[in-house]
Amino acid sequence: MDGAPDAGELTPPDRTLMGPGPSDVHPRVLRAMSTPLVGHLDPAFVEIMDEVQELLRYVFRTDNEWTIPVSGTGTAAMESAVGNLVEPGDTMLVATNGYFGGRMASIAERAGGDIVTVDAPWGEPLDPVDVEAAFDEHQPDVFGFVHAETSTGVRQPDVPELTGIAHAHDAYVIADCVTSFGGVELHVDDWGIDVAYSAAQKCLSAPPGASPLTLNDRAMEKVLSRETEPRSWYLDLSLLEGYWGEDRAYHHTAPITNVYALREALRMAAEEGIENRWERHRDVAGGLKSGLETMGLEMNAADDYWLPSLNAVRVPDGVDDGAVISFLLEEYDIEIAAGLGDLGGEIWRIGCMGHSARPKNVEYLLGALEDALRTEGYDPERTPTPASDD
Amino acid sequence: MDGAPDAGELTPPDRTLMGPGPSDVHPRVLRAMSTPLVGHLDPAFVEIMDEVQELLRYVFRTDNEWTIPVSGTGTAAMESAVGNLVEPGDTMLVATNGYFGGRMASIAERAGGDIVTVDAPWGEPLDPVDVEAAFDEHQPDVFGFVHAETSTGVRQPDVPELTGIAHAHDAYVIADCVTSFGGVELHVDDWGIDVAYSAAQKCLSAPPGASPLTLNDRAMEKVLSRETEPRSWYLDLSLLEGYWGEDRAYHHTAPITNVYALREALRMAAEEGIENRWERHRDVAGGLKSGLETMGLEMNAADDYWLPSLNAVRVPDGVDDGAVISFLLEEYDIEIAAGLGDLGGEIWRIGCMGHSARPKNVEYLLGALEDALRTEGYDPERTPTPASDD
Repeated sequence: MDGAPDAGELTPPDRTLMGPGPSDVHPRVLRAMSTPLVGHLDPAFVEIMDEVQELLRYVFRTDNEWTIPVSGTGTAAMESAVGNLVEPGDTMLVATNGYFGGRMASIAERAGGDIVTVDAPWGEPLDPVDVEAAFDEHQPDVFGFVHAETSTGVRQPDVPELTGIAHAHDAYVIADCVTSFGGVELHVDDWGIDVAYSAAQKCLSAPPGASPLTLNDRAMEKVLSRETEPRSWYLDLSLLEGYWGEDRAYHHTAPITNVYALREALRMAAEEGIENRWERHRDVAGGLKSGLETMGLEMNAADDYWLPSLNAVRVPDGVDDGAVISFLLEEYDIEIAAGLGDLGGEIWRIGCMGHSARPKNVEYLLGALEDALRTEGYDPERTPTPASDD
Repeated sequence: MDGAPDAGELTPPDRTLMGPGPSDVHPRVLRAMSTPLVGHLDPAFVEIMDEVQELLRYVFRTDNEWTIPVSGTGTAAMESAVGNLVEPGDTMLVATNGYFGGRMASIAERAGGDIVTVDAPWGEPLDPVDVEAAFDEHQPDVFGFVHAETSTGVRQPDVPELTGIAHAHDAYVIADCVTSFGGVELHVDDWGIDVAYSAAQKCLSAPPGASPLTLNDRAMEKVLSRETEPRSWYLDLSLLEGYWGEDRAYHHTAPITNVYALREALRMAAEEGIENRWERHRDVAGGLKSGLETMGLEMNAADDYWLPSLNAVRVPDGVDDGAVISFLLEEYDIEIAAGLGDLGGEIWRIGCMGHSARPKNVEYLLGALEDALRTEGYDPERTPTPASDD
């Protein structure tokens, strides 16, 4: 520690980000981050807070007053949602058909909740019949599921059916929208979702550090009438209400620059129009998907619940998943990711999110992947599966 | 929510930040934030993580292996420190001579700790005699104090004496260094501090969002041998060990751009040299202090424990503190802050931190404040108190 370390100029490599996030950040958003700061209680910042909240509501498709960026990355938003809604003694039903349902469970346990689960294989969505059965058996107070599972590439269909089951049992619904917000069709209000959260670095393409969260009045009433305080002070929504609500009183210092970035990224989503944005993700990721299938690769999720923002592709027999990932990084400066948990070694995860959801990125990736597969001894022509034969 | 909100270009006012943080950010650090992102598991980012950890150790004056940026603003670092170290059943002794000791207590309570306090008036440091007495009476497991109290402008002297008392009682010491790290003399290892944390937007002058934390092996052993899990998953250091330790395995997405900014700000601190940086803060803030005293204003803290980075100045009789703050903001684009808690209405808090600790900022502020005071009916010549008469 005695001598001053001699760190050089910051010169990270110029990557093309096609993994599960972060995605490529648009130059407009990067430029917003170099804006000089104002204080977190400055009247000018309060205006920016209002604008960000309004923009978040637009992308969530909600009128929820309680719509804020949480001062941390996506897991902080998850912990805000679960840790505030779940009280000691509450039972939470969580989905175990992917990695992030398990994370919800860990957080709920630490919040003092009892955990019950509803299962589906990794790579499939929840079946409403199973959810109904779990509700009948356990009568949970809170139900958490993942709308867009980053670990499996599965989009949960039938969301209104799931929320209907929960509400018929007087429970609250928390939806993890980390990989759908801003890129995949999502209607918080129309679908009856009580609490939803996301992250900045996925389909919104802002750097991570301030993470979208929304709660309806019903959920916020539960939070504000808790018998015990939430176990985090930093993420306590009843205290944050003083800062993001009408008072604008000091609670903690907001990550000002991340809020700037979020504003610019949300503004770009508003300019594009949210429906157009969903359509672009479907179109561009559709090109990616058919390119992968033309190479003979198989998607992990069936077409009915394919998740455009996160394409989970099965690793062909005899191919080393890690070698392909390293080859793409080293030879092409492209990031894709390996499988997590149950799917470790079995899939690649290829993101197509936000500013990364461009034909240019897809073409570049497909060419590079073909080269990587050949290098690893796989013949992309071996098992051609044209989309028309499906 | 139906129509897309029409948010304009991001054009916050051009403030001079002389409040309790954020401070002015150097253009080099702003520029670092516009660097395109790499993934949080990219080998290139792992190198950046190593560099940031080494630079943090340099500024903390520590060899602690366990030195990381926490993925949130300063309060998240406080919650990491307190929430991991304090287990249910532990007793924590906290100082109540300022606002942030109270925050430590709130966090420790939520962690399941029992709270005992050691008191001193707001505006005075802790007396080691009182700390010793509190240890004898309560035998606490953990002792938390604030090295540089942002709410009162008091620098705690005698830190080695305090840590000595704690260690003689086999307790762990957590020091809040939010407003000293990188600007005010601090020696984590030599002073026997077990756990220290800070924030980015104070004397380091990086935007808030990634916050320095360091633990020595003794403290980390307590964390790793807890009987119960910490109540936060996001801030659980035993899990973060997998990401910031040797494995570099996924835990949560780090705020990549904030880490870039932290690196550049720390690099500038290393270039300047930490002792030179402490001296600059003393010199520049010394000019501010004598300018304030020349106007007849009185510092809240006695000279022996004056905190250069945060100058708490008493509001003269008959002057409306809020009117002066608004005048400075509206007429001069300068941010200073009001008192908090016990000192609400009684002091102004004028920061002199990092890139804001420049003679240019001090001159500008002094002239503006003189104008503001005259406008509010106070005659700055009324009670001249040259420093030599003290």
